Amino acid sequence: MIVDALQYAEWSERVFRQMREGDVSAVHATIAYHETFRETVDELIAWNRRFEAHAELITWAGDVAAIRQANDNGRTAILFGLQNPSPIEGDIGLLEILHRLGVRFMQIAYNTQSLLAAGWTELEDGGVTRFGREAIAEMNRLGMAIDLSHAADRSARDAIAFSSRPVALTHANPRWARETGRNPPDEVIAALVERGGVMGFSLYPHHLPDGSETTLEGFCTMVARAVEQHGVGAFGLGSDLCQDRSDETVAWMRTGRWTKAPAGPDAVFPKQPDWFRGNGDFPGIADGLARIGFANNEVSALMGGNWMRFFEEAFQPVGDAP
Amino acid sequence: MIVDALQYAEWSERVFRQMREGDVSAVHATIAYHETFRETVDELIAWNRRFEAHAELITWAGDVAAIRQANDNGRTAILFGLQNPSPIEGDIGLLEILHRLGVRFMQIAYNTQSLLAAGWTELEDGGVTRFGREAIAEMNRLGMAIDLSHAADRSARDAIAFSSRPVALTHANPRWARETGRNPPDEVIAALVERGGVMGFSLYPHHLPDGSETTLEGFCTMVARAVEQHGVGAFGLGSDLCQDRSDETVAWMRTGRWTKAPAGPDAVFPKQPDWFRGNGDFPGIADGLARIGFANNEVSALMGGNWMRFFEEAFQPVGDAP
Repeated sequence: MIVDALQYAEWSERVFRQMREGDVSAVHATIAYHETFRETVDELIAWNRRFEAHAELITWAGDVAAIRQANDNGRTAILFGLQNPSPIEGDIGLLEILHRLGVRFMQIAYNTQSLLAAGWTELEDGGVTRFGREAIAEMNRLGMAIDLSHAADRSARDAIAFSSRPVALTHANPRWARETGRNPPDEVIAALVERGGVMGFSLYPHHLPDGSETTLEGFCTMVARAVEQHGVGAFGLGSDLCQDRSDETVAWMRTGRWTKAPAGPDAVFPKQPDWFRGNGDFPGIADGLARIGFANNEVSALMGGNWMRFFEEAFQPVGDAP
Repeated sequence: MIVDALQYAEWSERVFRQMREGDVSAVHATIAYHETFRETVDELIAWNRRFEAHAELITWAGDVAAIRQANDNGRTAILFGLQNPSPIEGDIGLLEILHRLGVRFMQIAYNTQSLLAAGWTELEDGGVTRFGREAIAEMNRLGMAIDLSHAADRSARDAIAFSSRPVALTHANPRWARETGRNPPDEVIAALVERGGVMGFSLYPHHLPDGSETTLEGFCTMVARAVEQHGVGAFGLGSDLCQDRSDETVAWMRTGRWTKAPAGPDAVFPKQPDWFRGNGDFPGIADGLARIGFANNEVSALMGGNWMRFFEEAFQPVGDAP
């Protein structure tokens, strides 16, 4: 099974057909960057229309059983996640509401300071806040996965330490592969993995060793080195694929509504590597991993098996949570 | 003129009549603690009804001219402020909207971490955030006063440094008078005053030297010592009076919606000192200040003149701001 732990494509029938052609079993789709609760509900409504219009291609899933069911029916399962806590608007009660509405991931921060934690571009990283601790406990109870992508280092370490369940880093690469605060240092990956977490390798050029020029072999070499360090069970894919999105989306991601300054001329999507342009290109990555020496069972684990194990552990509600 | 730079009374005709009896010229009224934008608008609507129903007692004011006009007409001027940035919901554009709707003060944080800065009970104080810097610049442009009450020390110092205009600390006492992180240390007061800011002495028992047992003389002695340190132009009143509010209000202030934990048995309003129970008791403070040795012009400055000077400087929009 192929699982992609992060996408924000310009969703369309074309994209959904490519998911099927690429044999993609499940995609974690971002439904909010800087949106309010109400705006996030609008995006859920838009997804309901997509599910209805393209019922033969995609379906919503909130757990492993639903992903398997979707696949048995020849469909790609769509999981929902938030790249920022903005949709909960400071209200811990909105976590259960959003979980009930299908959300299974939430990042503790997106680049800047959130009410829960600091993002990687923030001036200071004070770690997880008082509200952040409460929100992590509530996410643990509900079975909503904590996602450390875009978090600052101390905030990420705090979240791993405070969470009673495995934590995800859905889309990033090791910092040694590409020196940027957006990619986690080894100690964060090690702490994540020690607690049963999984990190998805990103295919976004700004996270890749050689940007848009990164070769498939270069990508797979990075994977192999990370696996040597942290084990083959620690990783999956989280492509960060923004297929067909216009550059206006980059501006929204960068500036949201917290600044009046324009996003700047560099707020454009970088060119994807030519071996990974869209949802049809996942099988090529599996081939690349096999070519570089991974055994079949290792390729399966990296392409989706590890995420399925993580989902099994992370989405199970505790006690009488919904 | 008597100016009270912070109240959150259970607003009623009784309270408004006491404002008139107490010869109160202007009151900064809190319209939000943890509310969203829409909920804050609800409170503005409630105020519109109050202004209509009690037009002979109170009126809204957004600048010094309106305060004087209100007083000429025998009314108490009501200024609006937010004790938390929650109503702007991460959207810098909502600052201008709220300013247009009459808001003239916003705290950078309320006890815990906000998107702008840390509150005094937060685990870590990383100072003013990237969004916080942008919001301060926008508030400076609009003529919305930055209020440092409830902020953590470094966040307060940052805000003073980043603001191009005088900053307020509407309701607090010096930390030496009552050792609590809620009261600012001398270096924060000194920095505030150096930039033309004003601090309002609080009459909330938890901020007072001897709590509910603080005497009027004890209060005035604290004022005298602070004036010796920082000058008579540095201070006013900011009573933090929550006249007639039920203890449920304390729970809302403390926990908002960011925790599921109950506010605890200590979440009750402390007893006010018997010489300051309500809006009718302000003249007694003026008498106390005179008794302890302040000259008439100093009493006037402390009772409201300094706040009027601050309002004159802080509420003037820059350039073509509204």
